[in-house]
Amino acid sequence: MRQWGVPSHHRLKHRVQFYETDAAGIVHFSWFYRYMEEAEHALWRKVGLSISPRDAKIGFPRVSATFDFHHPLHFEDEFEITITVVKITTKTIQYKTVITCKQSDIATGSMIVACVSKTPGQPMKSITIPREIADRFQPSD
Amino acid sequence: MRQWGVPSHHRLKHRVQFYETDAAGIVHFSWFYRYMEEAEHALWRKVGLSISPRDAKIGFPRVSATFDFHHPLHFEDEFEITITVVKITTKTIQYKTVITCKQSDIATGSMIVACVSKTPGQPMKSITIPREIADRFQPSD
Amino acid sequence: MRQWGVPSHHRLKHRVQFYETDAAGIVHFSWFYRYMEEAEHALWRKVGLSISPRDAKIGFPRVSATFDFHHPLHFEDEFEITITVVKITTKTIQYKTVITCKQSDIATGSMIVACVSKTPGQPMKSITIPREIADRFQPSD
Amino acid sequence: MRQWGVPSHHRLKHRVQFYETDAAGIVHFSWFYRYMEEAEHALWRKVGLSISPRDAKIGFPRVSATFDFHHPLHFEDEFEITITVVKITTKTIQYKTVITCKQSDIATGSMIVACVSKTPGQPMKSITIPREIADRFQPSD
Repeated sequence: MRQWGVPSHHRLKHRVQFYETDAAGIVHFSWFYRYMEEAEHALWRKVGLSISPRDAKIGFPRVSATFDFHHPLHFEDEFEITITVVKITTKTIQYKTVITCKQSDIATGSMIVACVSKTPGQPMKSITIPREIADRFQPSD
Repeated sequence: MRQWGVPSHHRLKHRVQFYETDAAGIVHFSWFYRYMEEAEHALWRKVGLSISPRDAKIGFPRVSATFDFHHPLHFEDEFEITITVVKITTKTIQYKTVITCKQSDIATGSMIVACVSKTPGQPMKSITIPREIADRFQPSD
Repeated sequence: MRQWGVPSHHRLKHRVQFYETDAAGIVHFSWFYRYMEEAEHALWRKVGLSISPRDAKIGFPRVSATFDFHHPLHFEDEFEITITVVKITTKTIQYKTVITCKQSDIATGSMIVACVSKTPGQPMKSITIPREIADRFQPSD
Repeated sequence: MRQWGVPSHHRLKHRVQFYETDAAGIVHFSWFYRYMEEAEHALWRKVGLSISPRDAKIGFPRVSATFDFHHPLHFEDEFEITITVVKITTKTIQYKTVITCKQSDIATGSMIVACVSKTPGQPMKSITIPREIADRFQPSD
């Protein structure tokens, strides 16, 4: 039975670090994918889970990730990352992300992750998301 | 007049570095966007250009970037990144990228970059790609 | 006149992000240098400064940086970075850093940065640290 | 019996990637430690070893790493990294590194790594370097 009312989204603040900037004077675009994942992992912690506990037998590799970039971020900018679970299928979780800074839309992203089993020496294999994990999230738009 | 026959794609080899892996034992997905850009810049050099010469008055920030991930890469894997210019509009360049390792499809990506003017102290502003740049590339599928 | 009592050190918390780990399952050592710099910049903000304001005419490149590593950090570990200004000379600032996690010493580092003038098209040149900057810090052991 | 004449150093070329630069327009200092490690791993491959084979029971975490920075590197600079094994003790390997660009000394570094055993669920434990590894390297100054 799904637990209605459990959180489906999370917002966290981040300040641009110098090592995240590039010679164009702005955050290198590769960092946005890391910000999205950082918010995802914080969301998992909020519902009482770690996405990668030590010696875990399952994992959640990324199937796809995309970003549209609207405005740049600069050194020491404080911005917000909001991540939302938009869909859960038997084997995947889909997220969308909005990054904002001072009421300005900076970037919008989305990501799909799949549940896999990890056996040493063998390729990862797609499996059904365990119910005790899927039940922690309540998809929304 | 467009110079027919100029290269529209580039292939380069890369070996997975240890700092590109994560605790799941595979290349962290954020690196694929860097690989795609690395191939883009190599393509520009191949046609005689730098995408970011020092004190340049124009730049090419990313408008969007996406990747679908099919198989993981591991430490010391040697793989190939192929980038192709698929479309050039007045103000943007569109690329697609295929990453392969030992005949296996690892990931497929795409990226759109826009031409902007850079004036110190002012926001970047979208402009028409200079003809001497656009003419160096021949889009293909 | 030096302002006695101004802060000479700063402590900040950081949680290990997944992209900071490597295939050995621990934080890649290159990140510790970034943590040290992150704490340095937070210290500067605490005394009312940005180490790299936009269009700045001076900068503070690193002259040397070292770390001794005692224990590893793992995904989601919460740890503390303490940075202290240990010496200010006419042209340099020297820091030491201690990284701890759950009362355990993780790593100890040190760093020297120099003040330089930045003129477009010319090499960086070592200069005297402006008094309004040097006066904000009070070295201690 | 030590195999005299085996290589004790390695030189490799690297071109500065855009994602390695920061808002000061130069390579962020944290990258030099990665360059040093990249050269170390290439040296190991040259003598027929991987420093981190899959499912390895031993590993070589870093004990300390230091760099002195002399001149900056910029986007697309081609430079050389030379790494030399300067000492092997029962449990550690010590390297020095020189980074040069167009006959200019860019940076000099050093690093000590230790051999450890890795047992799942237990802390890493310092052990004697296996003879088949130690014998592959011939320290020099």
